[in-house]
Amino acid sequence: MVDTEERDLVARQLDELHAKYRTWGQDQVVSYYPEDAPEDERHHFGLAGTNVDGTQWRSGDCSVKFPLHSVSKVFTYGLALEDNGAAETLRRVGVEPSGDPFNSITFDEAHHRPHNPMINAGALVAANLVAGKDVDEKVDRILERYRVYSGNPELAVDQRILRAQLRSNDRNLGLCYIMRSLGMITGDIDEVVETYLSACSITVTAADLSVMGATLANGGVNPLTGERAIGREHVRDVISVMMTCGMYDAAGQWANEVGIPAKSGVSGDIVFVLPRYFGFGVYSPGLDVHGNSVRGVGLCRELSETFGLHVFADPADSPFGRVAQPAPTP
Amino acid sequence: MVDTEERDLVARQLDELHAKYRTWGQDQVVSYYPEDAPEDERHHFGLAGTNVDGTQWRSGDCSVKFPLHSVSKVFTYGLALEDNGAAETLRRVGVEPSGDPFNSITFDEAHHRPHNPMINAGALVAANLVAGKDVDEKVDRILERYRVYSGNPELAVDQRILRAQLRSNDRNLGLCYIMRSLGMITGDIDEVVETYLSACSITVTAADLSVMGATLANGGVNPLTGERAIGREHVRDVISVMMTCGMYDAAGQWANEVGIPAKSGVSGDIVFVLPRYFGFGVYSPGLDVHGNSVRGVGLCRELSETFGLHVFADPADSPFGRVAQPAPTP
Amino acid sequence: MVDTEERDLVARQLDELHAKYRTWGQDQVVSYYPEDAPEDERHHFGLAGTNVDGTQWRSGDCSVKFPLHSVSKVFTYGLALEDNGAAETLRRVGVEPSGDPFNSITFDEAHHRPHNPMINAGALVAANLVAGKDVDEKVDRILERYRVYSGNPELAVDQRILRAQLRSNDRNLGLCYIMRSLGMITGDIDEVVETYLSACSITVTAADLSVMGATLANGGVNPLTGERAIGREHVRDVISVMMTCGMYDAAGQWANEVGIPAKSGVSGDIVFVLPRYFGFGVYSPGLDVHGNSVRGVGLCRELSETFGLHVFADPADSPFGRVAQPAPTP
Amino acid sequence: MVDTEERDLVARQLDELHAKYRTWGQDQVVSYYPEDAPEDERHHFGLAGTNVDGTQWRSGDCSVKFPLHSVSKVFTYGLALEDNGAAETLRRVGVEPSGDPFNSITFDEAHHRPHNPMINAGALVAANLVAGKDVDEKVDRILERYRVYSGNPELAVDQRILRAQLRSNDRNLGLCYIMRSLGMITGDIDEVVETYLSACSITVTAADLSVMGATLANGGVNPLTGERAIGREHVRDVISVMMTCGMYDAAGQWANEVGIPAKSGVSGDIVFVLPRYFGFGVYSPGLDVHGNSVRGVGLCRELSETFGLHVFADPADSPFGRVAQPAPTP
Repeated sequence: MVDTEERDLVARQLDELHAKYRTWGQDQVVSYYPEDAPEDERHHFGLAGTNVDGTQWRSGDCSVKFPLHSVSKVFTYGLALEDNGAAETLRRVGVEPSGDPFNSITFDEAHHRPHNPMINAGALVAANLVAGKDVDEKVDRILERYRVYSGNPELAVDQRILRAQLRSNDRNLGLCYIMRSLGMITGDIDEVVETYLSACSITVTAADLSVMGATLANGGVNPLTGERAIGREHVRDVISVMMTCGMYDAAGQWANEVGIPAKSGVSGDIVFVLPRYFGFGVYSPGLDVHGNSVRGVGLCRELSETFGLHVFADPADSPFGRVAQPAPTP
Repeated sequence: MVDTEERDLVARQLDELHAKYRTWGQDQVVSYYPEDAPEDERHHFGLAGTNVDGTQWRSGDCSVKFPLHSVSKVFTYGLALEDNGAAETLRRVGVEPSGDPFNSITFDEAHHRPHNPMINAGALVAANLVAGKDVDEKVDRILERYRVYSGNPELAVDQRILRAQLRSNDRNLGLCYIMRSLGMITGDIDEVVETYLSACSITVTAADLSVMGATLANGGVNPLTGERAIGREHVRDVISVMMTCGMYDAAGQWANEVGIPAKSGVSGDIVFVLPRYFGFGVYSPGLDVHGNSVRGVGLCRELSETFGLHVFADPADSPFGRVAQPAPTP
Repeated sequence: MVDTEERDLVARQLDELHAKYRTWGQDQVVSYYPEDAPEDERHHFGLAGTNVDGTQWRSGDCSVKFPLHSVSKVFTYGLALEDNGAAETLRRVGVEPSGDPFNSITFDEAHHRPHNPMINAGALVAANLVAGKDVDEKVDRILERYRVYSGNPELAVDQRILRAQLRSNDRNLGLCYIMRSLGMITGDIDEVVETYLSACSITVTAADLSVMGATLANGGVNPLTGERAIGREHVRDVISVMMTCGMYDAAGQWANEVGIPAKSGVSGDIVFVLPRYFGFGVYSPGLDVHGNSVRGVGLCRELSETFGLHVFADPADSPFGRVAQPAPTP
Repeated sequence: MVDTEERDLVARQLDELHAKYRTWGQDQVVSYYPEDAPEDERHHFGLAGTNVDGTQWRSGDCSVKFPLHSVSKVFTYGLALEDNGAAETLRRVGVEPSGDPFNSITFDEAHHRPHNPMINAGALVAANLVAGKDVDEKVDRILERYRVYSGNPELAVDQRILRAQLRSNDRNLGLCYIMRSLGMITGDIDEVVETYLSACSITVTAADLSVMGATLANGGVNPLTGERAIGREHVRDVISVMMTCGMYDAAGQWANEVGIPAKSGVSGDIVFVLPRYFGFGVYSPGLDVHGNSVRGVGLCRELSETFGLHVFADPADSPFGRVAQPAPTP
């Protein structure tokens, strides 16, 4: 258990970080999504953390709802692993970073599959792999599982957002037709795309997202409810692919500098996961050129630095240093 | 401290793994390097581990010397970071996996630099970045530092191997001339190549290599001698790039399935590092199509599985589970 | 005018070539299209030539109908030029060979357009550029124009073939959705694809095809009817792109070895055009790995060699040698 | 024979074109080569044409010497064909346009050779293919042959230019080392590069260059001296590759818009060849972004337009129209 003093110390530090990046955002935030969002929604900024022991921290707008967008790729990939096993899933979608943008139309030619499940092509294959006889069953299955991850039984698809996505959807349809022509996906394309976009259109809060991350950090079991969201043998595969492919074409630099498995979405949301310790959810709509939340990225970097969270950090930099004694034998 | 019982248990398990993969190698080992190596040298197989508390394990041929080859890229990159700082080093060589083979002639066009220091182009730039007014000073500096990493003051460049490398060297010369034409390296090309190949030709044992890895695991301080080999602020950068780029074009799959930062060389050597815990050195000359040691890769996979070493493993799979309580606050 | 003696000599030589390649086909022909074609249709082999003075030669199955498939790309590109002008057409579709297969999903990124109108992506853009308020008007316009090219008022779309094409159409749909997402095409995608596939499904004979080629050779005027099929300022653009991009990924080698502007289709049809002199149509269903008719390619090569038709041939090799004196001033 | 009236008419038209582009150059010419050239040398502008019947036209600075640079690639490729035959030459260097810049380090992977002899990699292979036991013999052979092409027995390598080239030569050395590592070239690399750069450093005048082009137009026989410079069976291969690959990454657009086989060099020189009719040499040092002479390109375009020289032009646009009757049978 985190003791009271520690909990309060962390809370103060997170509030300070939040305050710092709120200001910083004023002139750094360069683009907004969607472009017609009301002015006041553009300045939302929430930061929430959940420890695997259940401790939670919240700074800023942690009750504002936003669609998961590409952050959903993480959890849908987990479902694909569960419903098909690791070997079959790997046969259908790779785990190599591609260095390409999220909507790239290149494939892993040698293995006849999308490069990884964090780019659109791979996420569409993962949606195709979710069990269910039609789009309704698949979306129900996704929703049910996301509710276990978050412990929030009221998660739902925002139908207005889904419809808007379906109207502006040429790239995903194009990817699906190309992939079906290559034998990478099967079945009805409109259903594949609707499954994928439904997951993208599920709305959560930064607090929900931090619990979803903490469930991965906790080996697949929601630390608040004790319910299992994903088989423990699949957790490391999901986290690995966040580490190597999660931050689009800046994945290598992210692994190097921040060193925390993470995934971002065009809502301006980021989930990040420190295995065995906690999950964090950030929400702030301004995006950088890579499509990552400007404030979110800045805050994650500093959080990693301040708390020594880099997974390959020197023990002396890290709170792990205090507890990881004696060092375990292999 | 690892207690006696644990130490002996681990020793027995490592011996069993070593015995299993020695047999397995008979029909799996598909290529040898160099082709004219004596028959008996081809079957060498050593496995050594060093814990950050100084405990060591050795199975098989742990006293046989072999040249580091590409494994040297890890430690020379560390020197480049020390001698130039992280920012300047990143300006000159990236940290993104390229998905290309080790001797690829592609570059990160957008940033005008090699993709990463684990492929030849990037390793040549790293050699160019080591401080020293000429090749002799640079090689002396490398040797001195490698001796601190290993705690072995007798490490030396094998001149016969170096000369053989210099004779069969068109690809590296070509890369250097191209890079100089692009402004990616400066100075005398023969000196850059000789610096790089001298580091590749330093001979070590599997035991030496495990200590070098343990020094990284221990935040840059050799756990046997207490000497610092690399500034602690650079350790995580070195380990990150092993994780994302260390195993050539199979880096993503390695991160996913094995989940331990590692680097291989064409001698059939592999170093792998579990931060805060230990380093391992493996030596077995048969190579797979990616240029990685066949037995070494098989053994690493099983070691990761058996001991739950994947950096993103579920705590219940892992010896960390026993000690990592309570979970630290961020 | 070709005199009687010459005409008969050429007729004999063409018959000999036809006979030679009919035999050669028996073991060379490696694939058939479509796979369910009746056995006897697979051995059709027609060769027809039309001189700009109206002389015609026919060897073999010159009255058998086949769908134009990709050969239609040539004539639809001509319509795009007429309906939009050369500058606007070039803005929308390039003229650079891509070295890629016909169904490639790569684009000319620098100019934000398909590489050229002889690959599917570019042919779809050309179909999109044909004047007409809907698919019916566009297809009527295409048909009307192809009838002028061929002098055959009965040319029609084979609806059975069109429907089969529409059922197996993922790649073209994928290309269109991707291109619309990139702003390369506009409007209804099903209509773009149906326009393109309707042109592909127009059936002709080898004799018709030779007249269509002769119309291009004759500066755009059908040599049998005297009707103009395409503005003379666009003829050279159409022929140039046949020369540099017509034979898929073997275009450079074709320009080098055969040296006659040509275009092939998966029916096993080839049109080739010697500007100012004649057009030829060949039909033989076996395809090589590039998707070109096996017999057709063999016959074209030998025809070029025998008659010295290479556009860059030495005058001494060529029938031009006899007439092209004195050499004109520039 | 060109009659006197025609000859004078053409002379007047060429003078007018020359005058027009001299003025146009003032603000269009954007870069100069070499950068330290004397101010007055930068404005040189010569245009010379030679008909296959020996008629010559000269406008402007037709007696100024300049190094051939990449224009030499055309004639050295001819020598490679002669000394090795077409099949062996094709095995070693392709004929496909690459769409890449002249100094690209990409190769035709499928065939394990440079894409074509008009980019540096391919030109170095061609130099490697010229007969001769060492660099002196090879350069003597090249010089001897270039003298036959031009009919100028005084052509020589400019040693000052050669030495400057050898000092700034990293890219070519890099390409050679890479190609030797891939088995694409053999032997001493310094000799390959010196052979290639010696050919580049041969100095000619615009008048010489027009005769060299006319020799190709005339089937390989110098129209002034009657001497054969290249076997007639190789002429069309040389001209084809000029057409498809001669103008760097703008080759397709050049073939489309200008339609005359041509090759440019960084001196600001261009040779172009209308088979069976004439060769032209242009010299004007300002270069566009593709590395082609600004005035030279403008002038070639207009010359093609004015005189209807496009090889695929409508007969009605062309002086061919006047003489090419009756149309020959194939």
